[in-house]
Amino acid sequence: MIWTVTPNPAVDTTYNVGRLRYGQTHRVQQVQVRPGGKGLNVARVLEQLGARVGTTGLLGGTSGQFVCSQLTQLAPTVEQRWVDTGVKTRTSVAVVDGQATVFNESGQPVPNWCWAELEDLLRQVVHPGDVVTINGSLPQDTPAGTVPGLARAAREAGARLIIDTSGAALLESAAWADIVKPNEEELLAATGAETVSEGVAQLQARGCQVVVVSRGGDGMELWSPLGVWACRPPRVLVGNATGAGDAAVASLALTLQDADLGDAQQLRAALRQAVATSAAAVVVPTAGEIDMPVRTELLASLTVSDVA
Amino acid sequence: MIWTVTPNPAVDTTYNVGRLRYGQTHRVQQVQVRPGGKGLNVARVLEQLGARVGTTGLLGGTSGQFVCSQLTQLAPTVEQRWVDTGVKTRTSVAVVDGQATVFNESGQPVPNWCWAELEDLLRQVVHPGDVVTINGSLPQDTPAGTVPGLARAAREAGARLIIDTSGAALLESAAWADIVKPNEEELLAATGAETVSEGVAQLQARGCQVVVVSRGGDGMELWSPLGVWACRPPRVLVGNATGAGDAAVASLALTLQDADLGDAQQLRAALRQAVATSAAAVVVPTAGEIDMPVRTELLASLTVSDVA
Repeated sequence: MIWTVTPNPAVDTTYNVGRLRYGQTHRVQQVQVRPGGKGLNVARVLEQLGARVGTTGLLGGTSGQFVCSQLTQLAPTVEQRWVDTGVKTRTSVAVVDGQATVFNESGQPVPNWCWAELEDLLRQVVHPGDVVTINGSLPQDTPAGTVPGLARAAREAGARLIIDTSGAALLESAAWADIVKPNEEELLAATGAETVSEGVAQLQARGCQVVVVSRGGDGMELWSPLGVWACRPPRVLVGNATGAGDAAVASLALTLQDADLGDAQQLRAALRQAVATSAAAVVVPTAGEIDMPVRTELLASLTVSDVA
Repeated sequence: MIWTVTPNPAVDTTYNVGRLRYGQTHRVQQVQVRPGGKGLNVARVLEQLGARVGTTGLLGGTSGQFVCSQLTQLAPTVEQRWVDTGVKTRTSVAVVDGQATVFNESGQPVPNWCWAELEDLLRQVVHPGDVVTINGSLPQDTPAGTVPGLARAAREAGARLIIDTSGAALLESAAWADIVKPNEEELLAATGAETVSEGVAQLQARGCQVVVVSRGGDGMELWSPLGVWACRPPRVLVGNATGAGDAAVASLALTLQDADLGDAQQLRAALRQAVATSAAAVVVPTAGEIDMPVRTELLASLTVSDVA
């Protein structure tokens, strides 16, 4: 089973406006509201790919209830086990007029017992052979050591682990991860490195041997002790890049369930699958969904090259 | 007693961002949330001016509960009598980076029984000699005739009436109003007139003799069968114009309690007070509050002139 962990979910709100006019007042006729958060997107893509999935993290307030009930409707087979924080789950607002201008609330601080409860929950629900992914941002004022604590709980329960977060949390939890998946910007910001190569070296020195670096439309690189490979989509895909990284994490989680990270051939396959799944998310307007025929087509056509 | 009616309140949310960058993603550290809606602002200004005030309208969902509980804290002497619609009260989002770029959700449709209940409520709480103000926008798909129905209920209960709404609702309820207070743009849009004079004539033909037209920083004009007068602030006031019109309505409601609209001198005084109160709202950063010393100063210094 694959468990995705979202420490900081959101109610994703979309305002469609004719044109965003700076300094003006807009009347918003149509409001779309959806459950948001990177771990939720990963879980939904995994459901589409036929995996057995559970999802956990922190929710609170009526906005938290909304996230839970809407996710049940969108992804009925995903098992949900949330810690109820009592702190209102945050909102994000995307103003769309062709382009998306996005405002992400950073998330109210949660009491420390919530983190302890989430660790306990992971120890309960995760079993040996499972895969756990820890995804996305953290609420304000989250203490240092929180993500490593979750990562350790998952590992000690017998899971393999993917980390897709940023900043200090990425750095300090790399020791527990089988795979980390920062984008290029996050990698450089978290490590303070000047180049991708230096940044990857830092994460590997901390103990995570496989680092997948996503580079938007340029595809991804997979760095490992067995080799470094790149894979890019064959054409520029137009659509919504939000959730593309989450689709890649979903694909890597499937890889971790079955594959041997000590086999170069399997690592190359994992990279190709991650890029295909990610690109198949871009062409779908909403995050957390992929276009299965596009994925199938890309799986057949994508090539993986050695990075010099 | 003065009753203010808000058919479409809102949870006013403010996102402070360093700079609004079109097409980009912003992390919002600070979120301010306040009860919003024109009738609420009118009630709060009236409380500051020492009036006995009640407020009513439609609220629903947890956002509606929030509006009610926060208003209790902000304005403890304001009596609240809401119709609980069961339909989530809307949100408005102001993105502030020096300028305010505002997104107002238009408000989910409410079942028709809500309007009938609001009419009944007005007939219960309003007594002869009271003043009623009906303020602001309407939820989506509000049937024609709704605001006239509320206006009629208020009049039949013995109240004098101010209407501050827009579009068809303004036009069709003018017959019941003692005073209407559109801004210039709303007046022209509602009547289809080319000039203020023509627009005012249409409202007067429908039965409302006193029309106060607000013109932003240029002050206001009061049109009546006894004369037409203008009053403008002596200087450009810098601040937040949101709520300035509501402060004017609060002042006009006090006028309606005591003054004789058939007396030119009293009409001129009402105009001067409305402009002073409105200007005293501009200099306060948040809507629904006025700067009392500024109002006092302006009451002494403002002059009213005949419109040629």
